[in-house]
Amino acid sequence: MLLEGVHFNLSWTDPRRLGRKSASVNFSDIAAMGGRPRYLLLSLGIPKNLPVEFVDNFMQGIIDRANEFGVSIIGGDTCCSEAGLVISITVLGEQAPDRVIRRTGAAPGDLIFVTGTVGSSAVGLAMLKAGKTEEMTHCVERHLDPSPRVLEGVALADAGVPSAMIDISDGLLSDLGHILERSDAGARIRVDLIPSAPGTAGHLSPDDLLDLVLSGGEDYELLFTAPPSKEAQIYSMFGTLGTAVTRIGEITAEHRLLLLNREGVEAPCRRKGYDHFS
Amino acid sequence: MLLEGVHFNLSWTDPRRLGRKSASVNFSDIAAMGGRPRYLLLSLGIPKNLPVEFVDNFMQGIIDRANEFGVSIIGGDTCCSEAGLVISITVLGEQAPDRVIRRTGAAPGDLIFVTGTVGSSAVGLAMLKAGKTEEMTHCVERHLDPSPRVLEGVALADAGVPSAMIDISDGLLSDLGHILERSDAGARIRVDLIPSAPGTAGHLSPDDLLDLVLSGGEDYELLFTAPPSKEAQIYSMFGTLGTAVTRIGEITAEHRLLLLNREGVEAPCRRKGYDHFS
Repeated sequence: MLLEGVHFNLSWTDPRRLGRKSASVNFSDIAAMGGRPRYLLLSLGIPKNLPVEFVDNFMQGIIDRANEFGVSIIGGDTCCSEAGLVISITVLGEQAPDRVIRRTGAAPGDLIFVTGTVGSSAVGLAMLKAGKTEEMTHCVERHLDPSPRVLEGVALADAGVPSAMIDISDGLLSDLGHILERSDAGARIRVDLIPSAPGTAGHLSPDDLLDLVLSGGEDYELLFTAPPSKEAQIYSMFGTLGTAVTRIGEITAEHRLLLLNREGVEAPCRRKGYDHFS
Repeated sequence: MLLEGVHFNLSWTDPRRLGRKSASVNFSDIAAMGGRPRYLLLSLGIPKNLPVEFVDNFMQGIIDRANEFGVSIIGGDTCCSEAGLVISITVLGEQAPDRVIRRTGAAPGDLIFVTGTVGSSAVGLAMLKAGKTEEMTHCVERHLDPSPRVLEGVALADAGVPSAMIDISDGLLSDLGHILERSDAGARIRVDLIPSAPGTAGHLSPDDLLDLVLSGGEDYELLFTAPPSKEAQIYSMFGTLGTAVTRIGEITAEHRLLLLNREGVEAPCRRKGYDHFS
């Protein structure tokens, strides 16, 4: 569910990108379980004064993304909203039951990997809020039109590689926390290894950047765990896909999320991720 | 999608009835195609100041209805709303492909049937708006907690009886219009045969009652067409189910919806049903 004023700001985005993102964030949830997105249902609450062209362009964005990933739009609902645009999407995906990846399987000794870069969307959002959309344009674009890691998620699941997986929507710490909670485990993360977007260090203080990398949401990268025996296979697989993948830490038996700096000393952290009701 | 202030008013309903209705209206859409509802996904946009007890009771209403019809709640989303409660539900149903009933199959000569009574929900809504909730309590209850015709829809589809079917959500004329449009046909309706709730004639003028019967929405009764050869089977089937069913007219080749009174003379009509964007 995406609500105007909560999840998006119509003065920052255009309807086509908003449509693309609305589909992408749902495809990302399917990808995070190793599934192929197949069917999409779209429900829209539309303010009376919203131009028809807006709805047409928004739909075109949904259709763009659906076509890109072979997804059929099969239903939904349309109604009038008296309080801003309301978007609710349900996506159904497919994967063989024994290949579905859950949050529950991370075991002590497993390595922790992340695709792409982390914190980019939050940097982009900060630029939009500050009206500096000419700077860090790749981060701004990443915030407005993220790419769901569908091919990567399916490839990992088909190969039976991850022990647990999630997509980073609420922030790395928060989403890793979901895996740790469901897997009844802890983790050690080397914060200096977490990949951030090129150029961010020049725009933000080290502390602010670390905050966004650890707690900025909406990257829609995959965060997954796998036994050390799979490490070489993972690098080879991602080399073929042309997608960056980085090892950032490991799962521990101790129920604690420990952040370490380059020297292996515990790193401070001010924030913990996005809480929908904070 | 159900939006506070558009589809419901929290000063008229309680959270448990609202939960029940939110599930029911979705089950009704499945029933209208002859399907068995199987899986439910619930997305909620929750205002920060809404008490947790409200959400608990709302969920209990959803669970009530889901249990009643053997439906599993399998997923959804929760987020914070800055503009009232937002409810979006997706229900998946099952039926054999060759038994699914669509809006497209009504043929000239087919009879038109409706289950239960029509206009009751609109009468109940009028009572709620007028603050007269002690009057016509069965209509008020019908508006706040309608019963989806799941058993009836499945029985009809399993028996291969209806040529076309829809549920009455926007109003009889409007929803019949959907069948006529998709079936490329017209209809003659005897307005005096349309069943209304007991007691309504004592509370409303004949013209006002006719308006609500023809155009009041949210009855969630089934409106279906069938060839005359199936008429006896239909009465027998509904006798067994213990549900009222009434023949109200017939499908015509002429592309026109004709409303006739008891004497077979064309009846006047002021309204046409609910338009979400009027």
